[in-house]
Amino acid sequence: MRILVTNDDGINSPGLMSVVHVLKKFGDVTVVAPFNQQSAVSSLLTLHKPLRVHKVFKNDEFFGYGVEGSPADCVKLAVTTILEHKPELLVSGINHGKNTSINILYSGTVAAAFEGLLFNIPSIALSICSHDIDADFTSSAYFIEKLIPQIIELKDKQNLLLNVNIPILPIEEIKGFKVTKPSSTLWEDKYEKRTDPFGGDYYWFAGSFMPLDKSENTDEGALADGFISITPLKIDFFNNELVEILNIS
Amino acid sequence: MRILVTNDDGINSPGLMSVVHVLKKFGDVTVVAPFNQQSAVSSLLTLHKPLRVHKVFKNDEFFGYGVEGSPADCVKLAVTTILEHKPELLVSGINHGKNTSINILYSGTVAAAFEGLLFNIPSIALSICSHDIDADFTSSAYFIEKLIPQIIELKDKQNLLLNVNIPILPIEEIKGFKVTKPSSTLWEDKYEKRTDPFGGDYYWFAGSFMPLDKSENTDEGALADGFISITPLKIDFFNNELVEILNIS
Repeated sequence: MRILVTNDDGINSPGLMSVVHVLKKFGDVTVVAPFNQQSAVSSLLTLHKPLRVHKVFKNDEFFGYGVEGSPADCVKLAVTTILEHKPELLVSGINHGKNTSINILYSGTVAAAFEGLLFNIPSIALSICSHDIDADFTSSAYFIEKLIPQIIELKDKQNLLLNVNIPILPIEEIKGFKVTKPSSTLWEDKYEKRTDPFGGDYYWFAGSFMPLDKSENTDEGALADGFISITPLKIDFFNNELVEILNIS
Repeated sequence: MRILVTNDDGINSPGLMSVVHVLKKFGDVTVVAPFNQQSAVSSLLTLHKPLRVHKVFKNDEFFGYGVEGSPADCVKLAVTTILEHKPELLVSGINHGKNTSINILYSGTVAAAFEGLLFNIPSIALSICSHDIDADFTSSAYFIEKLIPQIIELKDKQNLLLNVNIPILPIEEIKGFKVTKPSSTLWEDKYEKRTDPFGGDYYWFAGSFMPLDKSENTDEGALADGFISITPLKIDFFNNELVEILNIS
């Protein structure tokens, strides 16, 4: 099985290394990931400047391709140009920080999986509920190893995009997988106005993601209850319900 | 009426200036737009570095705020920090280049309107079917002036997000407005491999947006028939149909 791995935290992220280690048990893994941190870049495409690609080595072995671009760039470049054959599975992550609720809109991790979907490649976005660079990936690796063969066994993988969020808990405290929908939690946006050492003003995003909608069957609800949240996603922006109020001449 | 105007082509774009000119007939316009070109940045958020804001003057008059960030940054910063009162209408554009079909996913113009929607502000993304910097905005200005009062008159503007694409035709050849859904056209992705003057390789996106799905009731169909396409959008990534095939333990 040919597996393409990418992420948005960059090719040197511990989360990416952790999932590569697991996925090598299931097939041939190729890593094509951003050379630099690309959090919250959404589905950004690099159109107006070139993409550089660096071969990245770890422990004197070839590890993967580092692309000076976004997660979406990585998937497009990998599938069309870098890889000889189309991947049979795309895995994006493991992201440091959960991608629940409205974060699906902003996440580079999920954006990579959207690209996989557009290529008709079964795609999984993986995130853990911690931004700690030293976060422990033991539990997530354990459960991803349980999840992957079940994905492979699914009869109908057309249009498969799963957004997986994993709580930071020891293996024995994680209650299993739960299929969910995105919660309605939004960011409370806020900016801090600050002054630089030269007297210039600047603004820094300082929003918060609380209070959470943790209602039943949502991603946030599942995480709060100690489950791994699995949310099937699609790309469909059409608001059919508005058509009837629009009588524009 | 308080109107917030932004775009993704940047605060000096002729498209933005054209729509500001029209909108001033309907209310108090505040421009908060990217300081630099931000095409195809999707819903990128600037979280890891500060945002600088520049007051921009045109013909010795204050024109608006130029933000060193994305369209989504502009809307968040405008609504939470720059503006004293919440806008009653958000207009993003006029973008140079149509934002139909899958381009909705990548467009910074549409992303700004998504932010408006998240703030419960009726939001409109405007694009013309030309990337020409010298494109003629006469027709688009004419029809936007016909469209805005109809938007204002809509009784139920909760969740209103309209993605408007305008053909490049003389006024008399535009057949009117048509409410549509996004067509299923996708990009045919392709990268050109090139060599820089120092012998280094780089890749440049060289995809094409053909052949188009121009079926009835789609944005591309309406444009092909000489109509202005108006597509109501929402943010909802949940794929309910996949839930039944997911039996993960």
